[in-house]
Amino acid sequence: MKNACHALTIATFYFSFLAVPAVAGDYITTPTKEDQKWLLPKTPPAPADNKPTPARVKLGKTLFFDPRLSSDGNISCASCHNPMFGWSDGLPTTKGHKSKVLGRASPTVVNSGHNTLQMWDGRKTSLEDQAMGPMESMDEMAADLPSLFKWLNAEPTYKTMFAKAYPGEAIDNKTVSKAIASFERTVISSNSPFDRWLQGDKKALTKQQVIGFRLFSDPNKGNCAACHQAPNFTDGGFHNIGLASYGNSNPDVGRFATKPVKSMRGAFKTPTLRDIALTAPYFHDGSANTLAEVVEHYNRGGVTKTDLSPNIKPLNLTHEEADAIVAFMQALTTPPQPFVLPTLPAN
Amino acid sequence: MKNACHALTIATFYFSFLAVPAVAGDYITTPTKEDQKWLLPKTPPAPADNKPTPARVKLGKTLFFDPRLSSDGNISCASCHNPMFGWSDGLPTTKGHKSKVLGRASPTVVNSGHNTLQMWDGRKTSLEDQAMGPMESMDEMAADLPSLFKWLNAEPTYKTMFAKAYPGEAIDNKTVSKAIASFERTVISSNSPFDRWLQGDKKALTKQQVIGFRLFSDPNKGNCAACHQAPNFTDGGFHNIGLASYGNSNPDVGRFATKPVKSMRGAFKTPTLRDIALTAPYFHDGSANTLAEVVEHYNRGGVTKTDLSPNIKPLNLTHEEADAIVAFMQALTTPPQPFVLPTLPAN
Repeated sequence: MKNACHALTIATFYFSFLAVPAVAGDYITTPTKEDQKWLLPKTPPAPADNKPTPARVKLGKTLFFDPRLSSDGNISCASCHNPMFGWSDGLPTTKGHKSKVLGRASPTVVNSGHNTLQMWDGRKTSLEDQAMGPMESMDEMAADLPSLFKWLNAEPTYKTMFAKAYPGEAIDNKTVSKAIASFERTVISSNSPFDRWLQGDKKALTKQQVIGFRLFSDPNKGNCAACHQAPNFTDGGFHNIGLASYGNSNPDVGRFATKPVKSMRGAFKTPTLRDIALTAPYFHDGSANTLAEVVEHYNRGGVTKTDLSPNIKPLNLTHEEADAIVAFMQALTTPPQPFVLPTLPAN
Repeated sequence: MKNACHALTIATFYFSFLAVPAVAGDYITTPTKEDQKWLLPKTPPAPADNKPTPARVKLGKTLFFDPRLSSDGNISCASCHNPMFGWSDGLPTTKGHKSKVLGRASPTVVNSGHNTLQMWDGRKTSLEDQAMGPMESMDEMAADLPSLFKWLNAEPTYKTMFAKAYPGEAIDNKTVSKAIASFERTVISSNSPFDRWLQGDKKALTKQQVIGFRLFSDPNKGNCAACHQAPNFTDGGFHNIGLASYGNSNPDVGRFATKPVKSMRGAFKTPTLRDIALTAPYFHDGSANTLAEVVEHYNRGGVTKTDLSPNIKPLNLTHEEADAIVAFMQALTTPPQPFVLPTLPAN
């Protein structure tokens, strides 16, 4: 009898680690082996012809912060991907050339090196492929490219930096893109309280945050992890999540423009949630001011009734459960680190 | 006879330190006691009701970098006073709200705490008096002030920071100005090669730079020090230096708008020359691209023939002398220091 009782205790013990009970508060509060899948690889992958070197990263950082890459000389990559706003810009949708209000929010650079596709609609297949986009766009940096490359090829400091970073290669759209991409791959968030908790620091998360994580992952509850997958809280995929901006008369069709299949109408890339507390407002259209509004949006199953129903359904979370998921997302922020500006070549 | 000879040697020795010979190359190459007047006081003066504290400086730095102080949410003080461009913006004349091209160049913040008057036309009497100006201007940050102060009074991090910096004071234009001014007083350049040379480091300046300094100070040569006076390379005064922009049909009358006396027509404040190599283009109208062009402008006695002749006359410097003065100005740059961005309160 004593042995049977012991066996039952052990069974209960293991059950408590493996099962995901349905009621908040009953969730297991220490990380499981399975949870380790959320730990990010140390460095993001880089293409064979653009492996990172200190010279490439330094050049890319300098270019990233140089407003002379825009025609008006007052917009740099960092204007809309601002380290002080979690590498976004704090605006609902970004403002470009002459402060023109653009159609989508500035996506964060954080962990973008881990993305398989870039941009909200995934139309760029790598950071290298993406980097010239804003310079080329007349609505964004509106660069006069021939003048820009003429200047970069004549500017002594940049010439030296390019020669060191890409010896034997021209100073052109390819090397500018490669340098910027090399820098962007260093913008990593992987030291959040959640990461520390996964690595054994029990106090890194509050109980509410752990509960939030379990609800986040629970297919019968938040089900957030269905798309915001390990390890970077994104599946790299595209989903119509039923935003009002898709329901209006002139919808942003999103991924459909690049991939014209029905399921991609109004679908946008799943963004990472790392450092998400720093990048309000939320969604590609900036329509949610807070993380609570984001969860509320999912909780009611989106707002749009269109020709294509959004592929989300109401979650029926309690207020308490929604709050716990928000608290968990707040635990995905790497603490502020001193960010040192580059030294730009003087005019 | 031996004594007389010795006396002559001593006399020659002292003469070589005190006199300023007329020919470049003969100038004395070590700092004299008189030269020490160029060393800046350690800290700029601050008003009695706004003595600097770490909390004030930190708050001011945060506000200075926060683009939410502009109506479009994309222009901060640092947009036009950018640490990466010597606290100016690298543009001929600055670009404001919706990138509107404004009439004057962005003056550097460097050592502005040592200025007696602020702005190119001196219409602001202190940094505190100046700080709200760009927010109030519909051409610059175009802030919606009631909304801005409502937001600052509701934003938890700012509320805490203001309470710490200015306990018992309201969060309003006064405390915002005081905080920004407190930060600006920390933006100091006082560790240039020239300063190190004054303090005994003989190798801090090249021979050409020392010659340039003597020419700069020589009333019969550059005569630059007549206005670009010790210790901050400015007399705090206003001068019409005969720029083309004053000679056109719609002249910028400069100081005259505030002080309508004839001598102030087309007169602008003497800017500091510290860190001047970082802030091209030059002059209040951005009409000189390089320091060489600046010296050339003075060398030909200005370009404007107007109702009021500029109060400069041709210098007749040789190319060699002009080059030496430029080389000297390049020795007024404090070496790049790591500049760490503030952490902005998240949205």
